[in-house]
Amino acid sequence: MADKPAVHPTAIVSPKARLGANIEIGPFCIVHDNVEIEDHCVFGSHCEIGVPTSLSNGSPLRIAAHSLIRSHSIFYEASQFGERLVTGHRVTVREHTQAGKNLQIGTLSDIQGDCRIGDYVRLHSNVHIGKQSVIGDFVWIFPYVVLTNDPTPPSDTLLGCEVGDYSALATMSVILPGVKIGQHCLVGAHACVGKNVPDHMIAAGVPAKIIGPTSNIKLRDSSGASAYPWTSHFTRGYPDEVTALWKNS
Amino acid sequence: MADKPAVHPTAIVSPKARLGANIEIGPFCIVHDNVEIEDHCVFGSHCEIGVPTSLSNGSPLRIAAHSLIRSHSIFYEASQFGERLVTGHRVTVREHTQAGKNLQIGTLSDIQGDCRIGDYVRLHSNVHIGKQSVIGDFVWIFPYVVLTNDPTPPSDTLLGCEVGDYSALATMSVILPGVKIGQHCLVGAHACVGKNVPDHMIAAGVPAKIIGPTSNIKLRDSSGASAYPWTSHFTRGYPDEVTALWKNS
Amino acid sequence: MADKPAVHPTAIVSPKARLGANIEIGPFCIVHDNVEIEDHCVFGSHCEIGVPTSLSNGSPLRIAAHSLIRSHSIFYEASQFGERLVTGHRVTVREHTQAGKNLQIGTLSDIQGDCRIGDYVRLHSNVHIGKQSVIGDFVWIFPYVVLTNDPTPPSDTLLGCEVGDYSALATMSVILPGVKIGQHCLVGAHACVGKNVPDHMIAAGVPAKIIGPTSNIKLRDSSGASAYPWTSHFTRGYPDEVTALWKNS
Repeated sequence: MADKPAVHPTAIVSPKARLGANIEIGPFCIVHDNVEIEDHCVFGSHCEIGVPTSLSNGSPLRIAAHSLIRSHSIFYEASQFGERLVTGHRVTVREHTQAGKNLQIGTLSDIQGDCRIGDYVRLHSNVHIGKQSVIGDFVWIFPYVVLTNDPTPPSDTLLGCEVGDYSALATMSVILPGVKIGQHCLVGAHACVGKNVPDHMIAAGVPAKIIGPTSNIKLRDSSGASAYPWTSHFTRGYPDEVTALWKNS
Repeated sequence: MADKPAVHPTAIVSPKARLGANIEIGPFCIVHDNVEIEDHCVFGSHCEIGVPTSLSNGSPLRIAAHSLIRSHSIFYEASQFGERLVTGHRVTVREHTQAGKNLQIGTLSDIQGDCRIGDYVRLHSNVHIGKQSVIGDFVWIFPYVVLTNDPTPPSDTLLGCEVGDYSALATMSVILPGVKIGQHCLVGAHACVGKNVPDHMIAAGVPAKIIGPTSNIKLRDSSGASAYPWTSHFTRGYPDEVTALWKNS
Repeated sequence: MADKPAVHPTAIVSPKARLGANIEIGPFCIVHDNVEIEDHCVFGSHCEIGVPTSLSNGSPLRIAAHSLIRSHSIFYEASQFGERLVTGHRVTVREHTQAGKNLQIGTLSDIQGDCRIGDYVRLHSNVHIGKQSVIGDFVWIFPYVVLTNDPTPPSDTLLGCEVGDYSALATMSVILPGVKIGQHCLVGAHACVGKNVPDHMIAAGVPAKIIGPTSNIKLRDSSGASAYPWTSHFTRGYPDEVTALWKNS
């Protein structure tokens, strides 16, 4: 059991980087000066961690314990992540991203920074999170979804999107600047959402319209049960203390 | 003429990897233990080949002869590819992908695994193939197309898409879970396909509708000939023995 | 102050590469033979610069002075770029791309080559520029936009798109083959544009329709001013001599 970082001999790690115990750093990685990595984190190959930026105000990249960053990923300084961050390959995370615990970021996803992300959020592959986005807890965002922020591009006005707790944004949907998605909502695949979506509602189409409550959607299994709220039937990957709360709600 | 692998001195190749003759492995590559690469294959720089996963059941990554994997690509163990696989840069291929011969995978494409792909399939840039997808022979999939699988996201139900032989899916289209695209179909750019598409039909729009037979579409050259089936006029890159069969059909 | 290239010791740089003064080349980079890099350029880590191709006709990759290429990017030989090129991470640029000065290429963008790009063009993240595209000056292209070229995919007919000076293409829009976007146009988010767009017009929807002049759109700040032409209010990052011309026009 190694107490010191297990750094591959080809990795380039700044002596100023603050690394906890039981850290693994893969081949051909670069770890810059201004990082604080807690215990039991693993970095795959070809990553660049703590990229310096003039926008950091000196803040470090902080990654909490038990995190796994897969290969070819890039994190800037001046962001922080709660424990058990897990990423796919080739993710990019810019400065001033504040994320809770148990965040998953899929392969190729691109977080532009200046944003807040809650606990237990799951971003699938190739998700684009624009600056000023605010994402709640237990949110799901599926491949090729874009959260935008400039209502009159290009301009100096940035209106970030908000996505409420437990909502799911299906693949290839776009959330237009300043739109607020409520809690437990579903945005349909390929939707372009320009208006706020109330709690427990479905938005679909281009432009998206509210087409009814999510409780109208049934599971495609033999149960015939309602598919939403998804917390009523889907628990994979969540700890027992979380799913116990869902059962009682 | 080298009979042994030509491994760049900076590459890290497991001694357990089974490599054929005339293999080239570029700078800063990593080749893990559980891979079988046949003769005459080339790997560009910065690749990670045979990434271990607990989902592999011990199966190796198998890549057949005369394949070319371009730089920054990532292949997991427990997938297999027929001869003459060619990829762009930064492709990601997860475990349990079964592909035939002469597959092309474009730059940034992301194959999620647990899927079957036929012979002579061409995936252009940034294509996303969800788990449980089944893709026939001679299929074309254009940039930013997504094949989905979860009808009520998130859930434990996975309904993969099927794409029949010779069909073409134009850019930015989404195929919804469980949808079957027939043979020789055309899905229009930016379509969102939620219903099955019969053979030789065009599906277009959001949501997609069947708008007629593909034979209605004429080539934009001076011939005035029908553009579909495309095998009547397009032969670039296919071997003579294949195109000879098309002429006789 | 270094007059010679500052090449990281892990980088692999061909002695045939023609490098100017004050060049920085990051760790784990590869610079091939056929490149000409002018003074004061910086290359981040893990890049591959001047990838050889049989389609180059021997032309080099030329990058003019004061350029910044961020990490994990790939440039083929036989393209050229004016001064002050700036890229995000993991961009891919194929052969026969001709670009003016002050081009910005966002993270993950994919330029397929055989295209012309003017001065001061800004491509955001994950933009796909098909072959035969012609892009004017001061154009903005936002995330996940695709410029296509094959009207009857797959075929041997390539009809590139044209985008006029000062036009903006919002996120997730697709420009269909051969379409000409005029000057000072706005293409809405998630639009699929199949017909030409006259100067100063807005195209939106799937399929896209002309929905009015861009002057109808007001800024979302307290000014109540028209948001277009954007040159009336947005100057961030442009040199004074450029914005002075805008004020006088």
